[in-house]
Amino acid sequence: MSPPNPPLATAAQRTELPSPERFLDIIADKLAATELLFRRDLETDVPFVQQAGEYLLDGGGKRMRPALLLLSARLLDRDSDEEVTYAAAIELIHTATLIHDDIIDRSSLRRGRRTINDLWGNSLTVLLGDWLYTRALQKALAHGNLAVIRRLCDATLRMTEGELLAQQRLGSIDLSVDEYFDIIDRKTAQLFAAAAAIPSLITPADSVAGAALGRYGRALGTCFQVVDDMLDFTASEHQIGKPVLGDLSDGKLTLPLILLLPRLEAPARRAIERVLEDRGFDRTPSSEILDLVAREGALEEAGEIAAAWAETARGALTGLPANEAREALELAPDFVLNRRN
Amino acid sequence: MSPPNPPLATAAQRTELPSPERFLDIIADKLAATELLFRRDLETDVPFVQQAGEYLLDGGGKRMRPALLLLSARLLDRDSDEEVTYAAAIELIHTATLIHDDIIDRSSLRRGRRTINDLWGNSLTVLLGDWLYTRALQKALAHGNLAVIRRLCDATLRMTEGELLAQQRLGSIDLSVDEYFDIIDRKTAQLFAAAAAIPSLITPADSVAGAALGRYGRALGTCFQVVDDMLDFTASEHQIGKPVLGDLSDGKLTLPLILLLPRLEAPARRAIERVLEDRGFDRTPSSEILDLVAREGALEEAGEIAAAWAETARGALTGLPANEAREALELAPDFVLNRRN
Repeated sequence: MSPPNPPLATAAQRTELPSPERFLDIIADKLAATELLFRRDLETDVPFVQQAGEYLLDGGGKRMRPALLLLSARLLDRDSDEEVTYAAAIELIHTATLIHDDIIDRSSLRRGRRTINDLWGNSLTVLLGDWLYTRALQKALAHGNLAVIRRLCDATLRMTEGELLAQQRLGSIDLSVDEYFDIIDRKTAQLFAAAAAIPSLITPADSVAGAALGRYGRALGTCFQVVDDMLDFTASEHQIGKPVLGDLSDGKLTLPLILLLPRLEAPARRAIERVLEDRGFDRTPSSEILDLVAREGALEEAGEIAAAWAETARGALTGLPANEAREALELAPDFVLNRRN
Repeated sequence: MSPPNPPLATAAQRTELPSPERFLDIIADKLAATELLFRRDLETDVPFVQQAGEYLLDGGGKRMRPALLLLSARLLDRDSDEEVTYAAAIELIHTATLIHDDIIDRSSLRRGRRTINDLWGNSLTVLLGDWLYTRALQKALAHGNLAVIRRLCDATLRMTEGELLAQQRLGSIDLSVDEYFDIIDRKTAQLFAAAAAIPSLITPADSVAGAALGRYGRALGTCFQVVDDMLDFTASEHQIGKPVLGDLSDGKLTLPLILLLPRLEAPARRAIERVLEDRGFDRTPSSEILDLVAREGALEEAGEIAAAWAETARGALTGLPANEAREALELAPDFVLNRRN
C-alpha cells in the first residue's frame, strides 16, 4: 500500500489530480439518466411537492451517492435501467435527510440558497421529507429486488439513528472519539456503503464484490464526513454556503475539537464550552477557537485520520476487477480529501 | 341490503351492539402477538427511541388498523406469523404519522397525554417519526413479500399527500366536499384499505378477495374519518383527549362545516372565517359555531354520509367467505359510526 495521501493538499498538489469531470466521464450518460429519473420521481398531483421539487432540482447537488453507485455498477459491468433507478432513489433518500436535518438544525441556508423550511415552514417540510423517503422506496421497488430494498431501509434507519444520537449529545463537551465515529458511521457512512454495494445485489448477485464495495463505501463515507466537519473550520461561508464554525454554534462537537479538547487547559476548554452553551460566539469569538485549533494542529491531525480512511477505502478495492471504473473509485478518496466545498 | 344504521345512535340503540371485546375475541391471540411484536420492533440501541417507545406503548391506542388486518386474515383463513408482522408494521406506520402530525398541528395533547413533541421537542420527534416509518418497512420486509411492501409504501405515500393537501388548504373557507373527500381518502382511507387488503397478498394471493377487502377498508376508513371529524363537534375534551372544535381552531374545515357554509348568510359565514383567521375563538365564541351547526342540522347530514359509507363497507363484503371474521367485519362499521372517542 502506498503511504496515505497528504490531507488538505496544497493547490499545487491538487492540480496533479485529474479533473472531476474526467473522473465522471465514464458514467456521464448514467448520471444524466439519473437526473431525468430524479425529476420524474418528483412528479405528483400535489402542488407543493411539485413546487418544492422544482426548487430542489434547481439547487443541484454534488450527486456523490448516485455517482458512487453508478461507478460501482460500471465496475461490476452492470448496465441496465436498474442501477439508474437505485441511483435516483438513493439521492431522494439523501435529499429527504437533508430536508429533515435543516428543520432540526433550524438552518436557513444550504448550498448558498434558502432552505425548504425557511421558505415554506416546518409543517410542509416535515411532510415533504416523509414523501421523499417513501417515494424513494416506492420507486426502488419497481425492479422487485428485495435485497436492494432491505439495504436501502437498513441504511435509512442507521442514518436516522445517527442523527438521533447526535441530537441527544448536542451541546455536550465530552463527546468521545468513539461516539463521534459511531455517529458519522450511521449518519453518513452507511448510505455511502449502500450506494457502493447495491449494484452487487442486482442479479446475478455477487456477495464477495458486495462486501468489498460496502467496505469501500463505508470508509469513503467516513472520510467524507470527517472532511465535511473539517470544512466547517477552514472554508468560508462563500465556499460552503453556510456559516463558518456553524457546527459548533449549533452545539455539535466534531473531530478537530474532540481531538483538541483533552490538550487544553481549563480556561481554553471553558471558552469552547461557552459556545456550546450559548449556541453562538457572544462570549467566545470564533477567532479564538480557530487560533486554538491552529496552535495545537488539530486540523492536521483530523486530516491524517481522514487520509487513513481514504487509504482504507482504496485498500478495499483490491481484488475487484481492474477496469476504468475501479480507477475512478481509486481516485475518489483523493477528491473527497481535497474538496473545498 | 338493510337500511343505513342511524348515525350517532342513542345510548339505547348502542347497547344493542355486541361489546367490542366480543367482536375482537376471535383475534385476541393475534392482537396480543401484535402487541408483543410492536414492542420488539421498537427495540434499539438508541436511548431516545427506547424511552419514547416505552411512552408510546404505555399510551396504548385503539389498534384499529391491526384489528382490521387480523380480521381480514382470519376471514381468508390465513394463520401464520406473517399477518402479525404486517399488523405491527401498519401500527408503526400509523404511529409515525400521528407523531409527525402532532408536530405539524403543534399539538400538546393526544389521547389525553402529552405529545412526543411537547415532551421532547420537534427535532427528536421528526427523527423518531422517520425511524418508525423506516422500521415498519424494514420489519415488514422479513417475509420477502414484495406486493405487501408495495402496498404499504403506496398507502404511506398517499397519507403524506393527504396531509400535504390538507396543510396547503389550511385556513381556507372554500374547501369543497370533493376536496375534503380526496384529502381524507389519502390521509386515512388508503391505510385502512391496505390493512384490509394485505392478508390477500399473503401466498397464495387472492386478488378478487383483495379487491373486495380493499374496497371495504377504504369505505370503512372514510366512514371513520368523517365520524372522527364529527367528534370534534360533539365529544368533550375529556372523551377524545383534545380540545373541542380543535380542527377549526387549527384552521381545518371538516365535513359538517363544509355542508353548513353554503346555507349561511354572510355574517354567519364571516363568524366562521374569523376562527380560521385567528386560529382561535377570540372574536367568535365556539358556542356560536356549535349553535349554527345544530340549527342547520349539519351534523345529522354528515352522520348520514358517514352511515352511507358504513353501508358501502358492508356491501363490499358480499361474496367473501361467510364466517365469524366476516360477521365481525360486518359489525365494525357500526362500531365506527357509534364511537364516542
